[in-house]
Amino acid sequence: MAVTSTPAGSITDVTGVAVGHHQRTGRAWQTGTTVVLVTDGATPAVAVRGGGPGTRETDALAPENLVHEVHAVCLTGGSAYGLAAADGVMAWLEQHGLGYPVGPDVGGHQPVVPVVPTAVIFDLGRSGAFANRPDSSFGERAARNARSAQTNWGSVGAGTGATAGGLQGGVGTASTRVRLPLARPVSTEHATTSADSEAGAVEVVVGALAVVNANGSVIDRSTGLPWETGGLRLRRPDRAQRSALADALSGSAALNTTIGVVATSARLSKAEASKMASVAHDGLARAIRPAHSMFDGDTIFGLATGHAELPAGPHRLRAEGSRQHALNAILVAAADTFAAACTHAVVAAAAIGDAPAYRDLCSSALR
Amino acid sequence: MAVTSTPAGSITDVTGVAVGHHQRTGRAWQTGTTVVLVTDGATPAVAVRGGGPGTRETDALAPENLVHEVHAVCLTGGSAYGLAAADGVMAWLEQHGLGYPVGPDVGGHQPVVPVVPTAVIFDLGRSGAFANRPDSSFGERAARNARSAQTNWGSVGAGTGATAGGLQGGVGTASTRVRLPLARPVSTEHATTSADSEAGAVEVVVGALAVVNANGSVIDRSTGLPWETGGLRLRRPDRAQRSALADALSGSAALNTTIGVVATSARLSKAEASKMASVAHDGLARAIRPAHSMFDGDTIFGLATGHAELPAGPHRLRAEGSRQHALNAILVAAADTFAAACTHAVVAAAAIGDAPAYRDLCSSALR
Repeated sequence: MAVTSTPAGSITDVTGVAVGHHQRTGRAWQTGTTVVLVTDGATPAVAVRGGGPGTRETDALAPENLVHEVHAVCLTGGSAYGLAAADGVMAWLEQHGLGYPVGPDVGGHQPVVPVVPTAVIFDLGRSGAFANRPDSSFGERAARNARSAQTNWGSVGAGTGATAGGLQGGVGTASTRVRLPLARPVSTEHATTSADSEAGAVEVVVGALAVVNANGSVIDRSTGLPWETGGLRLRRPDRAQRSALADALSGSAALNTTIGVVATSARLSKAEASKMASVAHDGLARAIRPAHSMFDGDTIFGLATGHAELPAGPHRLRAEGSRQHALNAILVAAADTFAAACTHAVVAAAAIGDAPAYRDLCSSALR
Repeated sequence: MAVTSTPAGSITDVTGVAVGHHQRTGRAWQTGTTVVLVTDGATPAVAVRGGGPGTRETDALAPENLVHEVHAVCLTGGSAYGLAAADGVMAWLEQHGLGYPVGPDVGGHQPVVPVVPTAVIFDLGRSGAFANRPDSSFGERAARNARSAQTNWGSVGAGTGATAGGLQGGVGTASTRVRLPLARPVSTEHATTSADSEAGAVEVVVGALAVVNANGSVIDRSTGLPWETGGLRLRRPDRAQRSALADALSGSAALNTTIGVVATSARLSKAEASKMASVAHDGLARAIRPAHSMFDGDTIFGLATGHAELPAGPHRLRAEGSRQHALNAILVAAADTFAAACTHAVVAAAAIGDAPAYRDLCSSALR
């Protein structure tokens, strides 16, 4: 049976994944951009489930379409205006020769077209100035800042201008290790029960990054704790703190969105990565209530870096250790890990604008 | 019965639709941007059918999603890099207060977020310089240049760097008038045969704009004429011209795309506009052979300006003059008109780079 760890750590625990932020605060600025960088390439997918998405390069990710590898995903504030941040991510990738190779070499240099799937959150006017929003320089700087040992989370990058049910929102992350038993491939000549028996195991990592700018709440106001603890050890806040929290939770904004990435070290097809991105929305639905509204642009990208090989299919459906079972264990981890990342986003956020931070309102929860 | 005219004219025959181009040629430039502007707003839709699409803001157009009105569609060269042109279209729309209204007035001014659905063609390197491609200024200028009496077609705007099966490609257009009989609404109390009888008629216009950068050919090399004449009166070119044409048709590029817009003056729901965009791909399939390849990003946007009211549904399925019949007549016109626009794009194009123009190779066809 697949054995899954408690979510902890970060999306950068997935080999090959780095994260960079760029933000601007003060002087009527409160917005930013986060880039998930996979310089060795990853198999991409997307699941759009909100009623008001702002996106770019999502059609290329359909399983039947040509592009089978991307090198970055861009998540940004600025609503649709923020889609300009992807121009800067493209510029950075082009400078590094990363993208879809097109045409013959030019001066010993392979021309590329980077495909940068992008989604936005609505944070316009949070700083007081509607026109202060990310441009291409935000994307370029976020890509340049990418680190595989990224430790800045909360109200940074695309989470800078985020709110979550009246609290300061942010960028959260988590990862889960999944140990998958491997079945011997079913022989078509000698299909026996023993052919399905365990033949070793493979460990894959599932990581998530969530930019939580939700209309719904990550926090259950009756307990003062997150709906999903996501592996965090939290104590129930006292009555006074719960009362202050209840006041904050009523100050929700109208246009919101949770966007993010679920990544795995497993090698997946585009269709499998698409299923992973789709099921990660279950984690979003558990961690943020309500979610997927007409006014949310909830969008999750999938990335599979291909460092761990799953068993090859096809296998008999019920066979433990089959590809389907391995994929299914990844799906379960994708939902759990994305939920943990949503919780982490709000718990890690520091107050930066008008919205209070959970960590300040409910300081006793984190003791 | 619906009566449909032969395609002629232009997409700007649809009330409320204007078209603007901006292009740059010479000094190693050969690319541009075309904007379809609907300043009074239109109900949007999209159908992506190519294997290599480069798009922006298409998820917002899904029938179930929030955005029910857009003010511009951006079509551009530059492959994925060209998506930056939409930033400039957004800037122009914001300056004119056009977009999705968000939040309260700021200084007596309603803040807006324009949603600019965008698709790109691959024309990188056609000029000899891979890095010369549209940026945001191309989108802003194309929007500024928009005219409801646009007469520049062929190798202009997004068609500047286009090739079509070895010939110079371009931007083409056409329109069709459809006279739709109106049925009296079916009375739920007194449903009789006479309730379905004709009660007047409404005329709607269906217009199309196609940027043809196809791997497949618009021209049948055996006749030297377009697969679809699209209302054009053409003569069969002579043997020498057909031979020169056959040579040109073998010089096709690897990465191509046909993108465009089908617009109607009818008021349609997003789902109906989506059906219209989908069926317009049938016109593309007839006019360009082959089409919809893994290397084409074939994408058609739908726009319904709402100046003509169709009968309200529901009606009995077989009732002439019902909403379903009216919509179906629009679908037939959408395919015919988009096919005509594809043909027009190549016939109207003038030689501008390495690729020969059909009008030069087969001059006797246009006499």
